[in-house]
Amino acid sequence: MAQKPSIPKGTRDFTPDEMVRRNYIFDSIKEVFQRYGYMPIETPAMENLDTLLGKYGDEGDKLLFKILNSGDFLNKADDGLLAQKDSNRVTGQISEKGLRYDLTVPFARFVVQHQNELSFPFKRYQIQPVWRADRPQKGRYREFFQCDVDVIGSDSLFNEVELIQIVDEVFQKLGIRVVIKLNNRKVLAGIAEIIGEASRLTDITVAIDKLEKIGLEKVNAELSEKGLTDYAIAKLQPILSLSGSNSGKLDQLANILVSSEVGTKGVEELREVLTLVDSLDVETGVEMDLTLARGLNYYTGAIFEVKALDMQIGSITGGGRYDDLTGIFGLKNVSGVGISFGADRIFDVMNQLELYPPEVTTTTQLMFVNFGHKEGAHCLKIAAQLRNEGLKVEVYPDSAKMKKQMTYANKKNIAFVALVGEEEMNAGTVTLKNMGTGEQNSVKVEDIIGTFSE
Amino acid sequence: MAQKPSIPKGTRDFTPDEMVRRNYIFDSIKEVFQRYGYMPIETPAMENLDTLLGKYGDEGDKLLFKILNSGDFLNKADDGLLAQKDSNRVTGQISEKGLRYDLTVPFARFVVQHQNELSFPFKRYQIQPVWRADRPQKGRYREFFQCDVDVIGSDSLFNEVELIQIVDEVFQKLGIRVVIKLNNRKVLAGIAEIIGEASRLTDITVAIDKLEKIGLEKVNAELSEKGLTDYAIAKLQPILSLSGSNSGKLDQLANILVSSEVGTKGVEELREVLTLVDSLDVETGVEMDLTLARGLNYYTGAIFEVKALDMQIGSITGGGRYDDLTGIFGLKNVSGVGISFGADRIFDVMNQLELYPPEVTTTTQLMFVNFGHKEGAHCLKIAAQLRNEGLKVEVYPDSAKMKKQMTYANKKNIAFVALVGEEEMNAGTVTLKNMGTGEQNSVKVEDIIGTFSE
Repeated sequence: MAQKPSIPKGTRDFTPDEMVRRNYIFDSIKEVFQRYGYMPIETPAMENLDTLLGKYGDEGDKLLFKILNSGDFLNKADDGLLAQKDSNRVTGQISEKGLRYDLTVPFARFVVQHQNELSFPFKRYQIQPVWRADRPQKGRYREFFQCDVDVIGSDSLFNEVELIQIVDEVFQKLGIRVVIKLNNRKVLAGIAEIIGEASRLTDITVAIDKLEKIGLEKVNAELSEKGLTDYAIAKLQPILSLSGSNSGKLDQLANILVSSEVGTKGVEELREVLTLVDSLDVETGVEMDLTLARGLNYYTGAIFEVKALDMQIGSITGGGRYDDLTGIFGLKNVSGVGISFGADRIFDVMNQLELYPPEVTTTTQLMFVNFGHKEGAHCLKIAAQLRNEGLKVEVYPDSAKMKKQMTYANKKNIAFVALVGEEEMNAGTVTLKNMGTGEQNSVKVEDIIGTFSE
Repeated sequence: MAQKPSIPKGTRDFTPDEMVRRNYIFDSIKEVFQRYGYMPIETPAMENLDTLLGKYGDEGDKLLFKILNSGDFLNKADDGLLAQKDSNRVTGQISEKGLRYDLTVPFARFVVQHQNELSFPFKRYQIQPVWRADRPQKGRYREFFQCDVDVIGSDSLFNEVELIQIVDEVFQKLGIRVVIKLNNRKVLAGIAEIIGEASRLTDITVAIDKLEKIGLEKVNAELSEKGLTDYAIAKLQPILSLSGSNSGKLDQLANILVSSEVGTKGVEELREVLTLVDSLDVETGVEMDLTLARGLNYYTGAIFEVKALDMQIGSITGGGRYDDLTGIFGLKNVSGVGISFGADRIFDVMNQLELYPPEVTTTTQLMFVNFGHKEGAHCLKIAAQLRNEGLKVEVYPDSAKMKKQMTYANKKNIAFVALVGEEEMNAGTVTLKNMGTGEQNSVKVEDIIGTFSE
């Protein structure tokens, strides 16, 4: 009995229809990246576990897919640990490699390993799958694509501005209306400082991150629970209720944070980025948002997040500046900034809002119906000529029933079929049928190409 | 002490230079596939071990990279086997998934699993990495790319012809001179039959496969060793020394194989394919070659192999017809034919023969040198305009030393840099420097784009 085939939980096959749409998204994004001088790299699916472990927290270590060593892998395992079935400690003895968990750590590893070949600032993009042994659920996969763009080796704020321009262009190109939220880790540190709770930065940001969801009152309650003094909470209120334009908010914030060096630096950075963005042709709204705190332990300056306006789906792109990404691999004091486009979520938005231009679904432009060996062989020649002129052409390979051939053309969204029987062969013509309208025309072989360039 | 980063043996990073060249190869190949109506699919990196095991022989099973189950994986392992350290039998208890070993088995699995969504004949291409725990050596990697094109669900020889056209176009496009070798499994079966050794088909083909390398005498010795009668070996001689044109060889072979039904069918198939190819505009030489026996246990009709003429590197593309690929997954009697382009070998040939067109190495077209914040901010605006007009433009993000900025532009092969100081800002111009010739010109901002479209 043959096995019924299936694929691992949380993984996906991509059919031609899906591939064409995904490639449209990736190609659109890549084209923008390239217009700004970013270059592609790729890293191996497998990394040494040394490279991966300890970079994503304990939870992340558990979610790494580990590769079993080849050959007699149990040979090196400890008898005692095997007898105790201590999976945790045996893992390191029977596995040395894992599948990449994100593109950031491999990128840091790449930069350190190739530092002498690269010219800095190094501007790269990378679009590859990553793997996580997460519990699969709707919209969350065990294999999914990341699409990262980073510049490393420059602390100029021009880079932050450029990433905002890129986000703007990508989503305009794709037709997704978005807002870009902008914050700065230094501002958050300044706030914690001036309310006298510098050591509680994480608690504070975790709480105010929920402002939109749970409201001011509950945020204050949570802060109180976490042990913030009433004084600190009272001092935080005007910050939480900042409103108005970006520049209005910045002016208020500058006053509030005047006594904090790091906070003032953060305000200056935000102001410079927003001023430069205003001077450029950026159509997407950029909103200062103090509640934005993603990846706080990691980012050191700007923090970005992009939200779709016409669909509830959370963040579809995000990133920020990090000052010591490569330090873990021994290259210190290299500042970088980057963003990651959420390919799967963008795919979901494009599908739900039906944002693909019509040409994205078209495939073969013309199919020759096969009436028999002699007629088919004749069509092969015409097809070869038309392909030389750049047309996408198929000859149906079997002289199957007309209905079957037409169904094939329909399913594949082929716009025109050519019917060539003995009569057409003798006359040097084809009968061209528009599959959309059903209209049929007799066309000379040499005039076929013209009907497609009209 | 920070770790010195490295990647697993037999895997590779691809730098921007390499990526650009590899993408050129893949894009060229894809464009040809699409012109013939082939559509892309992708399958997950991980497959269930059920899907993979037993499909590549015992050796293949050993070379599969297996993924360790998540969580407390030892829990399900047998105490006795663990105590004996029986790696072989423990594997199946602690691992359920493996990395794909080729694209063929996942494709068969895909076709069976999605048979109700697909329209047949199904024409697909697939370009993805595969993984094998082979001993790494020069030119052999543990992660490498395959690039497969197949049509499944049609036994028309038009498909074989189309694949030859595709090979011809791909290698003409890439500029690699090749010869296409063609054989047919049915002819080999016919030969074994008429010399009275039908059961020794494999021994015979393994021996004659070496004809070119070791010569006729040694081939005969090997056949004798394998137990072929002197009668059989004598009867084989005229076949081994067939010469002349394809049609000459076919005429001789037709005579020799006249009493074998399967052999005669094979000759007819070869003749039809070669006749059709002759009638089309195929420039690459197609040579009938009876010594070609690749993947014999697998192919049932045509067998293809492509060799580069200007470099000794073995086969760079190959394939054939298989009549029961999907049978292992329960879908019987579906015939297909396909070829696989050896991406890594093609990459090696392109590199060694330096076959890339000059535009493949170009990246950013124009870089603005950064003389300071004010000048840089001014350049950001000009750069944004130029990108809108389709140019690939960078603004160097830091106001670093001139030499550093120029070195960056040089290393990245940027053709032009623009110098914009206070004077140029006031005059609405830029000083455009051709990095190749060193020539400098003052150009109005609105005329920059024109100098690139000349």
